[in-house]
Amino acid sequence: MPAPVIAVCCSGEGTNLQAIIRAIRRGRLRARVGVMVSDNPGALCLRRAIAAGIPTVVIDPRGFGSREAFDRALSRILEKAGARLIVLAGFMRLLSPWFVRRYRWRVLNIHPALLPAFPGTHAVRDALRHGVRVSGVTVHFVDSQVDHGPILLQEAVPLKAGDTEENLLKRIHRVEHRLYPIGIDLVLRGRVTVRGRDVRIAGR
Amino acid sequence: MPAPVIAVCCSGEGTNLQAIIRAIRRGRLRARVGVMVSDNPGALCLRRAIAAGIPTVVIDPRGFGSREAFDRALSRILEKAGARLIVLAGFMRLLSPWFVRRYRWRVLNIHPALLPAFPGTHAVRDALRHGVRVSGVTVHFVDSQVDHGPILLQEAVPLKAGDTEENLLKRIHRVEHRLYPIGIDLVLRGRVTVRGRDVRIAGR
Repeated sequence: MPAPVIAVCCSGEGTNLQAIIRAIRRGRLRARVGVMVSDNPGALCLRRAIAAGIPTVVIDPRGFGSREAFDRALSRILEKAGARLIVLAGFMRLLSPWFVRRYRWRVLNIHPALLPAFPGTHAVRDALRHGVRVSGVTVHFVDSQVDHGPILLQEAVPLKAGDTEENLLKRIHRVEHRLYPIGIDLVLRGRVTVRGRDVRIAGR
Repeated sequence: MPAPVIAVCCSGEGTNLQAIIRAIRRGRLRARVGVMVSDNPGALCLRRAIAAGIPTVVIDPRGFGSREAFDRALSRILEKAGARLIVLAGFMRLLSPWFVRRYRWRVLNIHPALLPAFPGTHAVRDALRHGVRVSGVTVHFVDSQVDHGPILLQEAVPLKAGDTEENLLKRIHRVEHRLYPIGIDLVLRGRVTVRGRDVRIAGR
């Protein structure tokens, strides 16, 4: 059987994309990245995908009248690639209710905090400013609220005395790069069922 | 030098009070509990305190016209006991802004979640219902907002598959009973400074 196809959506550096590519190469994640979609033509993730032989598509949001129009174009790309799972990896766009409904429990996101603490785009900075002693990483399914959907995996990252945003981010990224391929693999192997906020992992 | 005096305020079972008594007996916490205050005349914590030879005071909130009037009575008890630090251990009362200001950074609380996630009185149940994979314990200074003040210590408690509220609560309590005496000891040894939300622990 051919490996299941995933699509990765990314707006930035693409270090999680790189971690996914590495996990596939090392046989820790049985998948094929059928397409890498970016809304940012200058994003580094595009170069990483091209270097790995992954087809890339850039969709410029300025060409669309509404969020849903963009998402419909995105959907056409995902369908063409035959993606079974959509993996958000630093994709800086809100998805429309239409998209979220259409791909219910088929979109994963990763967040650099222990949700529900510190949602939003400055999670690491917010956690530091709040003075927490423990933050972490969350892999979750996407629902219609930002950084809110059912949680698949979480791992704690303890802070250290004198931690800077840079230090902490580095340790959080290391956990992300290990955790995301595990989460994707669990879903693709059909071991995950979602009921409301209750996410069960078979054999765990 | 005599051990510094603390006051413990408790409305319920008093398992954290028991952990504090044990830590003092074992020499892990250099302190003396000068008084145990409860707002609940039927609370089990009163019996624990009496069994340990700790003076107890019950203040019935119904005897007071306002929150501040109650807190002024509480303050008189704390002053009479010579308490340097006030330790809330399941004290089910909101403290008035007057009290919080008067005892700024001299009141500690413990919460069965990784704040700012799951504040309030049903933290463990709320965390389970949200479907988190990691919860924990927070020891924090009390400010005028509920479960919000500067964080002294936190420790993560990972959830297990099929965890019930009872199981999880038991593991969280075990961490509380270890963590709270450590936090109290750090403050009493003068190793803790608070600036805004930034809590520094000397020599850590």
